[in-house]
Amino acid sequence: MFKSYNPYKLEDKMKSLHHFFSENMESFLGYPCNGKFDYRSLYPFLDYPLNNVGDPFVSSNFALNTHNIEREVIEIFQDLTKADKSETWGYCTNGGTEGNMYGLFLAREIHPNAIVYYSDETHYSVNKIIKCLNIKSTRVKALPKGEMDLNHLNQLLYDNQNKPAIIVCNVGTTMKGAIDDLKGIRNALKKNNIKRSYIHADAALSGMILPFVKDPQSWSFADGIDSISISGHKMIGSPIPCGIVLAKSENIDHISQEVEYVGSKDTTIPGSRNAISPVFLWYQLKKLGFIGFQRMIKKCFDVADFSIKMFKAYGIEAWRHNNSVTVVFKRPSDYLIKKWQLAVNGETAHIITMPHVTKRKIVSFVKEIAEDKKRALKQVSSL
Amino acid sequence: MFKSYNPYKLEDKMKSLHHFFSENMESFLGYPCNGKFDYRSLYPFLDYPLNNVGDPFVSSNFALNTHNIEREVIEIFQDLTKADKSETWGYCTNGGTEGNMYGLFLAREIHPNAIVYYSDETHYSVNKIIKCLNIKSTRVKALPKGEMDLNHLNQLLYDNQNKPAIIVCNVGTTMKGAIDDLKGIRNALKKNNIKRSYIHADAALSGMILPFVKDPQSWSFADGIDSISISGHKMIGSPIPCGIVLAKSENIDHISQEVEYVGSKDTTIPGSRNAISPVFLWYQLKKLGFIGFQRMIKKCFDVADFSIKMFKAYGIEAWRHNNSVTVVFKRPSDYLIKKWQLAVNGETAHIITMPHVTKRKIVSFVKEIAEDKKRALKQVSSL
Repeated sequence: MFKSYNPYKLEDKMKSLHHFFSENMESFLGYPCNGKFDYRSLYPFLDYPLNNVGDPFVSSNFALNTHNIEREVIEIFQDLTKADKSETWGYCTNGGTEGNMYGLFLAREIHPNAIVYYSDETHYSVNKIIKCLNIKSTRVKALPKGEMDLNHLNQLLYDNQNKPAIIVCNVGTTMKGAIDDLKGIRNALKKNNIKRSYIHADAALSGMILPFVKDPQSWSFADGIDSISISGHKMIGSPIPCGIVLAKSENIDHISQEVEYVGSKDTTIPGSRNAISPVFLWYQLKKLGFIGFQRMIKKCFDVADFSIKMFKAYGIEAWRHNNSVTVVFKRPSDYLIKKWQLAVNGETAHIITMPHVTKRKIVSFVKEIAEDKKRALKQVSSL
Repeated sequence: MFKSYNPYKLEDKMKSLHHFFSENMESFLGYPCNGKFDYRSLYPFLDYPLNNVGDPFVSSNFALNTHNIEREVIEIFQDLTKADKSETWGYCTNGGTEGNMYGLFLAREIHPNAIVYYSDETHYSVNKIIKCLNIKSTRVKALPKGEMDLNHLNQLLYDNQNKPAIIVCNVGTTMKGAIDDLKGIRNALKKNNIKRSYIHADAALSGMILPFVKDPQSWSFADGIDSISISGHKMIGSPIPCGIVLAKSENIDHISQEVEYVGSKDTTIPGSRNAISPVFLWYQLKKLGFIGFQRMIKKCFDVADFSIKMFKAYGIEAWRHNNSVTVVFKRPSDYLIKKWQLAVNGETAHIITMPHVTKRKIVSFVKEIAEDKKRALKQVSSL
C-alpha cells in the first residue's frame, strides 16, 4: 500500500514541478489560454472546502459557497451576450465542453427527435457529447477557411425537413478561428421551412472577444441564439479550466429537479461545483472592466498582425480572420510543434496571440519556423 | 457595460468573503467534506494556466499539465479498490457526479438496451445522469436503514430477464451511509439468469473509508464491480470538488477518439481538465500515507460514536452503520438546519463526522439539538 513521503521529498518534488511549469510557460503559443493573470490575493480562499452545489440563483444549506459572486459573473455575461436578464439563466461551468453539453442537453429535451447539425471544424468535444446524449446528428462540410458550408447545410436541411434541427454554431472554430454565418444559418432554417429549431453557440474563445470589437459578426442572443458556452480560462485566464453557459430560462425547467438534501435546485450538470473559478473570473472582470478588456483585445490583434507581417517577411504564408487572434500557417516540424506547444490538425498549424504572447516571443518563434522551413527545403533539394 | 472596480473595493470585498467563510467553517457539520487540509505550499501552481486536457496516460502537446501526478493518484486508487492495474484505467474528475456519469456512459455503450437499476436512496445525480444519457431505468425500493431492497431487485430483474442490467451499487448512501449488498446483487443477477450486466459503484465518501478498515463490506473490483466513482473533496479534502473514476480498460475503447489538436486521446468526459486538484489529492495521499489515513478514519469513527453517546445521554435516538461516519437522527428545527448546515431529507437529518469535526463541537451541537427538542415538546404540550 502507498507510503507517506518524507516531507522534504514532498516539497522537493513540488519545487521541480513548479520549475517545469515556469520553463514551459516561456514557449506557450499554441493554445487559447491566457497566461497573464494574478489571483494571488484570492489564494487564501483555498483554505476552505468551498462548493457551489446547486443552482446559483437558489439559496442553499451549504453556506461555504460563492453563489453571489457566480451570479454577478453570469449577469456580466448576460450583458456581453445581449441576453435578456429576465429570460435567461446560467451558471459557471468546468469548461467549454460542459457548456456545450448543457446547451445540447436542453436542446434534446425540447426536441427529442431532432438532428444535430455541426461542421467538420466544430470542436472535437461535440462528437463525444452527441454520443453521450444519444442524439442523431449529421456533419456539415466546412469551407477552406473554416466556416460552415451553408450550401451543404441547406441541402442537409432540405433532406430532413420534417425533423427539428439543432445547430451548433461555431463562434470561433478551434483550428482557424472562423465564425459560422449565424444569419445564413437562420435563413437556411427559414428557407427549408424548419419549424422547430434550436441554435447553440460554441463561443469558447471568441465569446470574450466579440463584445469588445467595433464590428462583431452575428453571434449573440440578439442575433438569435438559444444558448451559449464561453470559456473562462481562455480570454479571461484561469489556472483552472472554467466557463459559463447561458440558456433561455423557459428551457431550464425541462431538466431541473428540487433537491432537499442541499436545499437547492439541481439545474446544473455537475453536483458539487467549483466555487473558486467564479471568483477568479469575477476578480479579473472587475479588475479590468469593459474598457480594460477592450484594450487587452486590441493588443492581442496587434500582436497577431505583427506575427503575420513577420511570417510574410520570411516568405511564409500566414493569415487570420477578422476579430480573431488565431494565426494560421503551414504545419512545421514535429520538433517545433513540441517545443512551442503548437496545436496542429493535418497540414494546418496555428498560434494564438493571447495576452501573454509578446512581440519579442513572436520574433524568436517566427525565426525558428523560417529556419525550419529552410532546412526542410534543403533536405528536399538534396534528394 | 460592467465597470472596473477601485482596487481597494475589490480587496475589501474579498476580505469580507474570507471572513464569511472563516465564520461558517465553525458550523460545518452536515456535509461529507473534510475541511482539514493544508495545500498552501501548492498555491504557486495557480500562477500558471494548467490544463490536463486529454488522457492522463497519453502524452500531450499541452506541456502545462500534471498528467504524471494524475497517473500516480490513479495508481494509488487502483491499489485501494483492488483493481488490476493492467486491466483498469481511470482519470481525475470534477467530482462524484462526473464519475457516475462516466461509469453509466460506458455501461450504456456496452449494453445499449439495458435497464439501469438504482435504489430510492441513490444520490440525486443518478436521476439526472440517466436522463442525460437517455437510458431506461427503474427504481428499486430501499430498506428503512438505506440499503437496496434485494427482494424488490429480484422481482424487477425477474420481470426484465431478457434485458441487460446496469446496477448502481451505493457504497455509502448520501443520507444514511448505507452500503448496498454487492454479493446479494450479484446473486440476484445470477438467480434471474441475467447474462449481460454491469455494476457501477458510487463510492463517493466510503470509497476512501473502506480501504482503511478491518472488516470492509463487499465493494471493490475484487468483489465484482465494473467501475467506481470516488470523490476527492470528501474524505481526502480539497477546496475544489474533484474525484476519480476507474473502469475496465477494455470498455474505454467504446468511447475513445484520437484528437490530433491536443496530441492525445479523448477518453474523458470534459475536454480541458483541472490539473490542480490531482496535485491536491496526490499531496494529501503522500503526506498521510496509508497508515495516516487509517488513523484519521479511526478518529472519525471515534467522534461518530461519541456523538451517538451524547445524543443518547439527552434521550435522543441516533445511529450509524458499521464503517460509516454518517450519524443519523430526527430532523431538527429549520433554525438549527441552517445554523449547522445540516443535510436533511424528509424526517431524516445527519451530521457527518469528517476529520475537522471535533468532540468539542459535537458537545455544543448536541446540546442545541436537545434544547431545540425540549422547546418543541413544550410548544406541543402548551397547545
